[in-house]
Amino acid sequence: MCVQIVGPNFHSERVRRCGCKMSENGISRPKVLTLDTMNPTVKMVEYAVRGPIVQRAVELEKELSEGIEKPFTEVIKANIGDAQAMGQQPITFFRQVLALCSYPELLNLDNTFPEDAKNRARLILQSCGGSSLGAYSPSQGIDYVRQDVANYIERRDGGVPCDPDNIYLTTGASDGITTILKLLVCGQGIDRTGVMISIPQYPLYSAALAELGAVQINYFLNEDNCWSMDIQELQRAVNEARQHCHPRALCIINPGNPTGQVQSRDCIEDVIRFAAKERLFLMADEVYQDNVYAEGCKFHSFKKVLFEMGPEYSETVELASFHSTSKCYMGECGFRGGYMEVINMDDDVKSQLTKLVSVRLCSPVPGQALMDLVVNPPQPGEPSYNCFIKERTATLSALAEKAKLTEKILNTVPGIRCNPVQGAMYSFPCITIPDKAIKEALEKGQQPDMFYCMTMLEETGICLVPGSGFGQKRINEGFVVMTILPPIDKLTILLNKVKEFHQRFTKQYS
Amino acid sequence: MCVQIVGPNFHSERVRRCGCKMSENGISRPKVLTLDTMNPTVKMVEYAVRGPIVQRAVELEKELSEGIEKPFTEVIKANIGDAQAMGQQPITFFRQVLALCSYPELLNLDNTFPEDAKNRARLILQSCGGSSLGAYSPSQGIDYVRQDVANYIERRDGGVPCDPDNIYLTTGASDGITTILKLLVCGQGIDRTGVMISIPQYPLYSAALAELGAVQINYFLNEDNCWSMDIQELQRAVNEARQHCHPRALCIINPGNPTGQVQSRDCIEDVIRFAAKERLFLMADEVYQDNVYAEGCKFHSFKKVLFEMGPEYSETVELASFHSTSKCYMGECGFRGGYMEVINMDDDVKSQLTKLVSVRLCSPVPGQALMDLVVNPPQPGEPSYNCFIKERTATLSALAEKAKLTEKILNTVPGIRCNPVQGAMYSFPCITIPDKAIKEALEKGQQPDMFYCMTMLEETGICLVPGSGFGQKRINEGFVVMTILPPIDKLTILLNKVKEFHQRFTKQYS
Repeated sequence: MCVQIVGPNFHSERVRRCGCKMSENGISRPKVLTLDTMNPTVKMVEYAVRGPIVQRAVELEKELSEGIEKPFTEVIKANIGDAQAMGQQPITFFRQVLALCSYPELLNLDNTFPEDAKNRARLILQSCGGSSLGAYSPSQGIDYVRQDVANYIERRDGGVPCDPDNIYLTTGASDGITTILKLLVCGQGIDRTGVMISIPQYPLYSAALAELGAVQINYFLNEDNCWSMDIQELQRAVNEARQHCHPRALCIINPGNPTGQVQSRDCIEDVIRFAAKERLFLMADEVYQDNVYAEGCKFHSFKKVLFEMGPEYSETVELASFHSTSKCYMGECGFRGGYMEVINMDDDVKSQLTKLVSVRLCSPVPGQALMDLVVNPPQPGEPSYNCFIKERTATLSALAEKAKLTEKILNTVPGIRCNPVQGAMYSFPCITIPDKAIKEALEKGQQPDMFYCMTMLEETGICLVPGSGFGQKRINEGFVVMTILPPIDKLTILLNKVKEFHQRFTKQYS
Repeated sequence: MCVQIVGPNFHSERVRRCGCKMSENGISRPKVLTLDTMNPTVKMVEYAVRGPIVQRAVELEKELSEGIEKPFTEVIKANIGDAQAMGQQPITFFRQVLALCSYPELLNLDNTFPEDAKNRARLILQSCGGSSLGAYSPSQGIDYVRQDVANYIERRDGGVPCDPDNIYLTTGASDGITTILKLLVCGQGIDRTGVMISIPQYPLYSAALAELGAVQINYFLNEDNCWSMDIQELQRAVNEARQHCHPRALCIINPGNPTGQVQSRDCIEDVIRFAAKERLFLMADEVYQDNVYAEGCKFHSFKKVLFEMGPEYSETVELASFHSTSKCYMGECGFRGGYMEVINMDDDVKSQLTKLVSVRLCSPVPGQALMDLVVNPPQPGEPSYNCFIKERTATLSALAEKAKLTEKILNTVPGIRCNPVQGAMYSFPCITIPDKAIKEALEKGQQPDMFYCMTMLEETGICLVPGSGFGQKRINEGFVVMTILPPIDKLTILLNKVKEFHQRFTKQYS
């Protein structure tokens, strides 16, 4: 209810709180859309990766640019896997083809572009409506690109067949994940769909589930065993969940975000058996499939393992797997390219999926073109091959070095312990937070790890994300997410600053 | 329930229908996700623009390419506003800048690009993380681009101020529209959010409302008065709706899709007064703002009219308006660029909106760059200005000519009547369908207009969309949506083929 207040004693604060605005002539009209009257599921959404700490980091950058003095000269955003923002260079071949596709007049230039880049641009343009990136594509994605994706998956998985009809091109992996979740959610009360997600998790999952009003079922990764996935823990989680909801899907991120663990083949088999037994739809987020650094670790796709387990599984277990142009050695986040493959999906449901994605018309066509280049890069003998291999190797080797460096330096700090970064792009160290700091945080109404990260940001300009935003909460211990993406010299400085800050913070609050 | 069937009498059809798949070793496992167990709101979604008729058109194209003989040599998809697929050429300046941004090495070439294109590319790259289109942008969009959008809106609206903080860059206009609808939907039963949409409508609206489980409130445009919007009809619709839901928003498409009407300033004022009186959040889909052809018609933005109505309205009525790179003279649908401006939105709700859009990280950065070029094209005196003006004028003049040509030819056909195409990119003629054809359609379980369009597709290769997919249903009359986008010579052939088909069809079923 809005109370109309007219006259000189107009109290703007009171009016604002009721969502009401009064014009100069004294006419008051309550807002249609207020916190009280908006979609309640949207209010439940949280997204730590771009939460309050990142907002503060942006403010600090502005303040610095306005000449306001700070104890640092630069804000370093180590909160998100944004490789090119951290200086990683794009793959030359990819960008050449994108430029040619954007402005096909360039195909007439001599000596500026290698022939394979030109040929590829021609092939992509031929597959577009009106030979233009500016036309809509089919909703499922350009046929030619989906065929290349299918070929890639077959090569990657040692010949396991892939049907391009099962490939959907998406706006980054996030779009694919939320679309599949959208299909899955139904029921009320004890029949409400529950979806199992790892803790720590990538907060897209909790955000999407909150928005859909689904039940989030947490299963905890085992910090003591390099953040491994334990079947006993999955069993505990699903058993408990069955008391209050209907578990229908199991999400896995492999290699892990933010934990960097790379799942063993055995573990994946166990997970598939578990999903079959418990009748869960599997969702495998495999966007870091090229980001494996630790010796003895190897990426195994869920699909390959599923098919190697024989028809009892390969013909029955429903699986959606996700990939994107944003991670691996590409780091092309801004293009929002991605694909998903659906396996053993009911035909009628697939029709519904195709219909659903048609409402957004199509994913961005430049992102589709880029996805094509990722799954079909230059081949030996082609003019761009050597340059491509050199660039890819340099990026992946540097990431492997940075993964080791991060673990090594963090583990020299008393009160910080860090599992090996086996894969992906993040470290997820555990931080001992002194009691006094916990007390001060709680007095401020903050999670202790948020208080820790905010203090670090204000004192050092380093922006990390508190682990509580990823679901990881413990008494007396906090976790932080830090990317390994800055260039090595900068990362070394950053890690040493974190070290100094932690020592200072610990001393201050002891 | 799934019945397990083992042995040689395995009946695949029966098994398939229960969503169950049996492997070779006889193990049967019901699917997790079936039509019966999926999200019921997704099943409610319909999207005519890419519905069964378009699927059949794609099949026909494949059959033609495989050499199967048809009564036509080419499928013409006049179902969707996909200008470049129909041969419209992109604006040279836009594509030059996009190529430069994609592969900045090109900035070092002499004589290939005009200096203003290079300068613009540098400005855009400077505004990107790591000076790359491959970095994520802020969730709300690149600051620099949002500032340019705000400047554009101020110029367009004769100086009405625009705050870049109210601008959100989106993945096409569809993304913005569904996002605002998502904020608005809440309540159950008689408190469930109702959203008013025009009939005929662009089916994104009904699809999004179905998915959100909101109540669709239809208001009918007046065919007898060039598809005008009548306040009496709005009043009727909202009064009736209040019996069973809570009307909270009013969607307007101006210029209209698919009806092409351009709203008068008076009408917009009336609509704003109506929204204020009935406490409705206004959503103005203004993606065709440059597509106005009819003499005496002019585009008036809802925002400008709102602000000219004085503070009683300009300070209270909540409005979101939408624009994109896909229509007007650009036709850059594949880039999925767009923006929305929110006005008088409650501050707390705005924070929720910003949080919500952060979950999808950012809209595609190439689309953001393109949006920047659209709102800030070459200026007089700059090297690219003349070419830009020439290209834009040619496209818009051709569209105006095609709008007239369409109306003219269609109105020569007995049994077809077509309102003037005042704006946008479509004609929406009314078709008299003979009783016999209606009978045959209903026997086949098809809407009569769908039967009409399907028959036309099979006989002529022309793909139109039945008006029933846009909500327009009448006894003995159907409507069809046809774009005016094909090149003039092709459009003339197409219109004459439609004419011939209609005469044949009428004769056959009389």
